[in-house]
Amino acid sequence: MRVGFIGLGRMGSAMAERILAAGHPLTVYNRTAARAEPLAALGATIARTPAEASRDAEAVVTMLADDAALDDVVFGDAGMLGALPRGAVHVGASTISAACAQRLAGAHTAAGQRYVSAPVFGRPEAARAGKLNVVLAGPDDALRAVEPLCSAIGQRTYRFGADPAAANIVKLGGNFLLGAMVEALSEAFTLARKSGIDVQAFSDLLTSSLFDAPAYHTYTRLLLAGGDAEPSFTAALGLKDVRLALAAAETAQVPMPIASVVRDAFVSALARGYGERDLTVLGRVAAENAGLG
Amino acid sequence: MRVGFIGLGRMGSAMAERILAAGHPLTVYNRTAARAEPLAALGATIARTPAEASRDAEAVVTMLADDAALDDVVFGDAGMLGALPRGAVHVGASTISAACAQRLAGAHTAAGQRYVSAPVFGRPEAARAGKLNVVLAGPDDALRAVEPLCSAIGQRTYRFGADPAAANIVKLGGNFLLGAMVEALSEAFTLARKSGIDVQAFSDLLTSSLFDAPAYHTYTRLLLAGGDAEPSFTAALGLKDVRLALAAAETAQVPMPIASVVRDAFVSALARGYGERDLTVLGRVAAENAGLG
Amino acid sequence: MRVGFIGLGRMGSAMAERILAAGHPLTVYNRTAARAEPLAALGATIARTPAEASRDAEAVVTMLADDAALDDVVFGDAGMLGALPRGAVHVGASTISAACAQRLAGAHTAAGQRYVSAPVFGRPEAARAGKLNVVLAGPDDALRAVEPLCSAIGQRTYRFGADPAAANIVKLGGNFLLGAMVEALSEAFTLARKSGIDVQAFSDLLTSSLFDAPAYHTYTRLLLAGGDAEPSFTAALGLKDVRLALAAAETAQVPMPIASVVRDAFVSALARGYGERDLTVLGRVAAENAGLG
Amino acid sequence: MRVGFIGLGRMGSAMAERILAAGHPLTVYNRTAARAEPLAALGATIARTPAEASRDAEAVVTMLADDAALDDVVFGDAGMLGALPRGAVHVGASTISAACAQRLAGAHTAAGQRYVSAPVFGRPEAARAGKLNVVLAGPDDALRAVEPLCSAIGQRTYRFGADPAAANIVKLGGNFLLGAMVEALSEAFTLARKSGIDVQAFSDLLTSSLFDAPAYHTYTRLLLAGGDAEPSFTAALGLKDVRLALAAAETAQVPMPIASVVRDAFVSALARGYGERDLTVLGRVAAENAGLG
Repeated sequence: MRVGFIGLGRMGSAMAERILAAGHPLTVYNRTAARAEPLAALGATIARTPAEASRDAEAVVTMLADDAALDDVVFGDAGMLGALPRGAVHVGASTISAACAQRLAGAHTAAGQRYVSAPVFGRPEAARAGKLNVVLAGPDDALRAVEPLCSAIGQRTYRFGADPAAANIVKLGGNFLLGAMVEALSEAFTLARKSGIDVQAFSDLLTSSLFDAPAYHTYTRLLLAGGDAEPSFTAALGLKDVRLALAAAETAQVPMPIASVVRDAFVSALARGYGERDLTVLGRVAAENAGLG
Repeated sequence: MRVGFIGLGRMGSAMAERILAAGHPLTVYNRTAARAEPLAALGATIARTPAEASRDAEAVVTMLADDAALDDVVFGDAGMLGALPRGAVHVGASTISAACAQRLAGAHTAAGQRYVSAPVFGRPEAARAGKLNVVLAGPDDALRAVEPLCSAIGQRTYRFGADPAAANIVKLGGNFLLGAMVEALSEAFTLARKSGIDVQAFSDLLTSSLFDAPAYHTYTRLLLAGGDAEPSFTAALGLKDVRLALAAAETAQVPMPIASVVRDAFVSALARGYGERDLTVLGRVAAENAGLG
Repeated sequence: MRVGFIGLGRMGSAMAERILAAGHPLTVYNRTAARAEPLAALGATIARTPAEASRDAEAVVTMLADDAALDDVVFGDAGMLGALPRGAVHVGASTISAACAQRLAGAHTAAGQRYVSAPVFGRPEAARAGKLNVVLAGPDDALRAVEPLCSAIGQRTYRFGADPAAANIVKLGGNFLLGAMVEALSEAFTLARKSGIDVQAFSDLLTSSLFDAPAYHTYTRLLLAGGDAEPSFTAALGLKDVRLALAAAETAQVPMPIASVVRDAFVSALARGYGERDLTVLGRVAAENAGLG
Repeated sequence: MRVGFIGLGRMGSAMAERILAAGHPLTVYNRTAARAEPLAALGATIARTPAEASRDAEAVVTMLADDAALDDVVFGDAGMLGALPRGAVHVGASTISAACAQRLAGAHTAAGQRYVSAPVFGRPEAARAGKLNVVLAGPDDALRAVEPLCSAIGQRTYRFGADPAAANIVKLGGNFLLGAMVEALSEAFTLARKSGIDVQAFSDLLTSSLFDAPAYHTYTRLLLAGGDAEPSFTAALGLKDVRLALAAAETAQVPMPIASVVRDAFVSALARGYGERDLTVLGRVAAENAGLG
């Protein structure tokens, strides 16, 4: 199918590569045009506006930083809304608010287009390997239409019904659980460290028994590396996601005290100048709060 | 080796069975004597006091509810301290405070005996199958001496040096991480439920990707069952453990805000009359706090 | 001076009465027109749109529920922005976000008008008695221009410089402190109640010694009345205000863990169906969390 | 009446002076004997042991740091228990746990003596001026017996029934409210400071309106002074008190999330080396958590 791709950050570029590799003709757009070049070298066409990336597409994937960026690409000048053909599908892969997903679904439906939410779990390494997990929700026919894209991008797709926002809430819930895990590990490791316990051995115990799961392997390794790893997911993005989870929870009237603690920890991380570090910098915040340098 | 075993609750009985099955002559003691009968049927000798269970032993394992119970068994009338032979090892498998472990180590050393901490990870099912993970710390020679016991009880032993209290802090840290996981899942599932999302599907996504770990499989299943499962680990015990973790953290001067949230949730569970339910009753507390019946 | 007044809820009506009583010609607007009648009986002119209330005014006071209501009144059809004379002052008394205040200030300045933030402390009883405390910020000349209004409304005015948003943050900070006080008292009273202590005597001790302050007198009385008082400030508004405080804090990169706890308590109050009760219903939430009916 | 006084820290010395000034013959004991000299100069007799201070007394007041110190003085060698005459009253003024108060009451009753709890509110300045507020609970006859002492020490006495522990819980509840106030103010002032607001003006607004209470005047002044004031109540003592409040709340099965936040803040203060500073050092902790130096 003819595909457009908008938003070529680390995750977006890797996903676009997978779509190209699966044989779909691809037109790409990125605000900073230079980021599109490597894909052009692989055969993608470069568009100068979101509209241009949408005009002939059967589906357009967006992978952007936040609600504002997505609103801009859809509703702004030379945006998707005026250009996407009737019946074509906007596949929203960004981690955005449930409210934004509902706004987009309404606008696309009113324009005779279709919208599905398709946020993904996985860091850029997983995206390059086609190992993402895709969370999908939207009208049945549209879900069927984008199946080839989902298989190009991910190893498995999980469906959550006809309301696109459901996929976004699932994604926010999952990211909340990751944030909670990182903060809990940060506290436990700090306790171990200040009690004279070998933290590496403690981590090995956890990840070879109770918590022998991909997320624990990845994040304990990053925590033990001291939060200085090349960030593939920054504290600033972590804050954004837990803020969106709390907003969805407020709408649904659900108190989430652990989410509040994680949010406070991220705010403190940003206040200390750690916003652009990997989110495991929460380990450093916990250590500093315990008087460690 | 000649072994004594004190404390025949669900965990203790299963562990004692494994020791018998490994061929060690075993003398058992339990305050409520009836609980010793099944082990007698398997060949164990029944002792009428902790002292009697200790008198001829090379090692005595204790698996009791809390610090107070252990203090009683060691320091009380007809207790272990006056009966355990010189050089014999007290193997403390209970989840107790670091302070209690230090007190025991001091007393046994002063009496010419030895003490190691050997708390275990795993629920009673795992204990019966010899699949526990043993966390071991104490003087080197004593650790070597009890190796046969550890292999009888567990599938793997993790060593944490010469200070017995280190093993207890590792155990408390691990249990804190379990409590944090259960509370975070409770919040995320409540958000999903009140947002109209299929919680079983959400759980399947989590446990087949990021969180494909034994603890997540076990506890998401129990949470989805509504907290009415036969408790193998009660909320009251959960509260005890997080209280001990916070006490160890206060000693080490480590703030643990997530542990505080988990503690508050357990206190609320007890206040609602859920103290003797499985600790996943935290899911019910989170649901009630969100207005669900 | 010729004054417009927009927003005639319980607070707004009381403030408008004071302005009339001080002898200023007053034109009033409220979305639900019936609420304007008592003021008409006192001599106010009724406007049919915000524009009509602004057209001849030297100053227009707005007292509305939230950012959205205010945006509507200023930027909407027949809104203030197109009607307020050059040099006239918009006096924003609503408890709104700092971001909204900045947006309004920008728009009015661009239109040759002036904007000051003037949120107030005090419940409706205080407003009727002219006993409000006014928090004022904005350009110096505009502050001087609205002095007569501030003295009509309040017993004292506190100035916070030229940036209108400063007054809004002070107001949000003050409301946060009230929410924190109510939640802390709710916890302390629940502890006393479940410990068999005479809560009225405990409250008397507090308010006749350490905490002999108006806010403690008012709110302990409401808490002891069980949260069933006629609400002059609802839990739903309490949630709105602490959400805005947390948003301002996130912008300023300040973690506020107590604000997070207060927010969670309000979310739980709304989830239990208590959104329209007086904010002291937090006492009921705390009691329920402790297993009291 | 013949009075003994044990524990001559800053609070104890000031209280003992008041008792002397009221004309009661006084025998004093302090572990570090030098602290007793100024009182000897005023006419007090110096005892070499707690027993000696108790032997001829009708009432003995204790003002010690914690449960352990009090247990030592009562149950230790040459302690009060073996020396206090039958019918004499132990007046426990220390801030101790409810459990400790119950233990003391039981032991004294068994020995034919009487025990009342009489913790006090007020800093050392207030003690010297006889302006403490006394919280009193115990058997009626004993309360009547110690009335002259209470009037010597305090400006007002509040009674809480026959169970001594009630007074201790009231004291812990009050200190919790002070801690909550200090932490909430720390967060609000940090928000103001990072938002470019004049914090002194903000504080003036609060203490001249809503929060015009002694505690707010005292603690805002100390907070604005930056936590470097001569400590009359240290962070380490603040931690002790909130820990005891949480223990009483756990016994009563009451979740206290704000108390948990305050506890975490104090633990962090100690971890940063601020344990011996005035408890308003929480303002510094909040500022550091927000990235301020």
